Amino acid sequence: MKKLYTVAVAGATGLVGRTMITVLEELNFPVEQLVPLASARSAGMEMPFKGTHVKVRTLTAESFAGVDFALFSAGASVSKEFGPKAVLQGAIVIDNSSAFRMDPDVPLVVPEVNPKDAFKHHGIIANPNCSTIQMVVVLKPLHDAFGIKRVVVSTYQSVTGAGKKGVNQLEDEIAKQPLREKKFPHPIAYNVLPHIDVFLPDGYTKEEQKMTDETKKIMGADIPVTATTVRVPVIGGHSEAVNIEFDRPCPVEDVRAILKRAPGIIVQDDPATNLYPLPIHAYGKNDVFVGRIRKDFSIRNGINLWIVSDNVRKGAATNAVQIAQLLISQKQ
Amino acid sequence: MKKLYTVAVAGATGLVGRTMITVLEELNFPVEQLVPLASARSAGMEMPFKGTHVKVRTLTAESFAGVDFALFSAGASVSKEFGPKAVLQGAIVIDNSSAFRMDPDVPLVVPEVNPKDAFKHHGIIANPNCSTIQMVVVLKPLHDAFGIKRVVVSTYQSVTGAGKKGVNQLEDEIAKQPLREKKFPHPIAYNVLPHIDVFLPDGYTKEEQKMTDETKKIMGADIPVTATTVRVPVIGGHSEAVNIEFDRPCPVEDVRAILKRAPGIIVQDDPATNLYPLPIHAYGKNDVFVGRIRKDFSIRNGINLWIVSDNVRKGAATNAVQIAQLLISQKQ
Repeated sequence: MKKLYTVAVAGATGLVGRTMITVLEELNFPVEQLVPLASARSAGMEMPFKGTHVKVRTLTAESFAGVDFALFSAGASVSKEFGPKAVLQGAIVIDNSSAFRMDPDVPLVVPEVNPKDAFKHHGIIANPNCSTIQMVVVLKPLHDAFGIKRVVVSTYQSVTGAGKKGVNQLEDEIAKQPLREKKFPHPIAYNVLPHIDVFLPDGYTKEEQKMTDETKKIMGADIPVTATTVRVPVIGGHSEAVNIEFDRPCPVEDVRAILKRAPGIIVQDDPATNLYPLPIHAYGKNDVFVGRIRKDFSIRNGINLWIVSDNVRKGAATNAVQIAQLLISQKQ
Repeated sequence: MKKLYTVAVAGATGLVGRTMITVLEELNFPVEQLVPLASARSAGMEMPFKGTHVKVRTLTAESFAGVDFALFSAGASVSKEFGPKAVLQGAIVIDNSSAFRMDPDVPLVVPEVNPKDAFKHHGIIANPNCSTIQMVVVLKPLHDAFGIKRVVVSTYQSVTGAGKKGVNQLEDEIAKQPLREKKFPHPIAYNVLPHIDVFLPDGYTKEEQKMTDETKKIMGADIPVTATTVRVPVIGGHSEAVNIEFDRPCPVEDVRAILKRAPGIIVQDDPATNLYPLPIHAYGKNDVFVGRIRKDFSIRNGINLWIVSDNVRKGAATNAVQIAQLLISQKQ
């Protein structure tokens, strides 16, 4: 008989936390007991799960007794405070915050890319940044085939990446009503903001830096990535215009064939029927969608492509649940 | 005494045509007589100009008698049919359509970049594509300083680039009301479309091809440009994430200083105060705004920057009027 697991979700009432619970159910993760955790303010709320409702408990240092997997998505400070405590109580922490991602002792895992790293954990496994996850799922099979020399990426990121507050600001601005809260430094309706997360001294944003640093760690290769990350008034998924230079020739038909058989990817690439990945179509799905695959005529071995994925799903909740699936697939 | 000119605007009731009339007035172009032209359907409408109203006439082969400058923005087929007729009647045609842009006998002009080309005309001068104009205004001074080796650009293009119909589709979708007309192949509200203009056999869109081809012609240099052009639910201006590789070292402070003194450019680049170009701020302005200037660490001599401009203004109407200004500045 299959073992069943006690799974805690810290930050259960947030956009990602809710989706983690949904994905645990949808992917039929063998949950014996779900433990939704949040701040005291949200305690007592009921989260729907497998036809019942599970009460949210206040997250405390004692929340993790008997917990097998603790999925964290409540911000870096919560992860730093409670993640190690959960580990001490015997849980494996899968952390969606940036708290431990670049810690050399913490694996940063995308199951399609570096599954083996997951098993090197010391209690904590980090879930990468959303915009990085969808990109590396596509980069990995292409790097294996042609050797990536350099990546230039520009993103078009959904307001869902800023949580419920981001969605609220867009909706309030569209409705021309007073903002419930201001999440972005400028209006986002009918606008785009070349500014996600905080600015660093070199002029890049932390979001851009994450794409550069995390890609190298996940891919286990020193691939130079230069990024411009941009918030757009989209609800549904992040899009990325990705330019890749390879070491070796990369015929477009080979690229397309490789991506079609790669795990986690759906190729949507038929200009004749206006088929290409769209954030509103990726919304609510677990896959990474790729299209607009074309030869880059400006360099010897290059391609352009367009990658879209639901940032709350594969970019966060789904990837976290898939890491847990990966771990139990070896335990059974 | 300054000479006054008779100026016709073909396509006077469209988004760009109306703005051409506004800009003629704002820039104080020496207009003796304004001749707004449009299809028979719009004839009789009144266009506000310098405190009066000027009746729109039906565009015919005889519309251009006595006209000094004919600004066309009524689509390529109208330009092809009536442009040469206007020239035969003695007008200088400044054409905003794609009809003549790549014709070797027609100069393609951005006054800040290649003003001398304007004087080589044989009656027709082409106004470049909107997304190309704002990019080359920035590329030109940097090419002169450091030699551009390659450009990778991703665009974030306003629905105003698709005319009033594009704006209507976004507004109707946002209001959840039946579309007055369908301009885009997919919904644009809360979405982004990696598809502007038609697809070509190599997988690029015509908009992407324009950025590649027109940049070379305007710059008079074989600069390789690879582009991904994307429609976003923005009303106000086009944005571009531009990655430039140079032949020579390009210190960021030098880049910033060069752009600050370059014509037509306003540098907005202060991350500490969240200052960077935004489409909603560029809306209604004639300048090209640049910010997010930063060293590209993925190559030896590279920078990233963020360029925004009102595509209906500098990307179309303003540039056309500036070409006319340039021509008369030499006539006076």
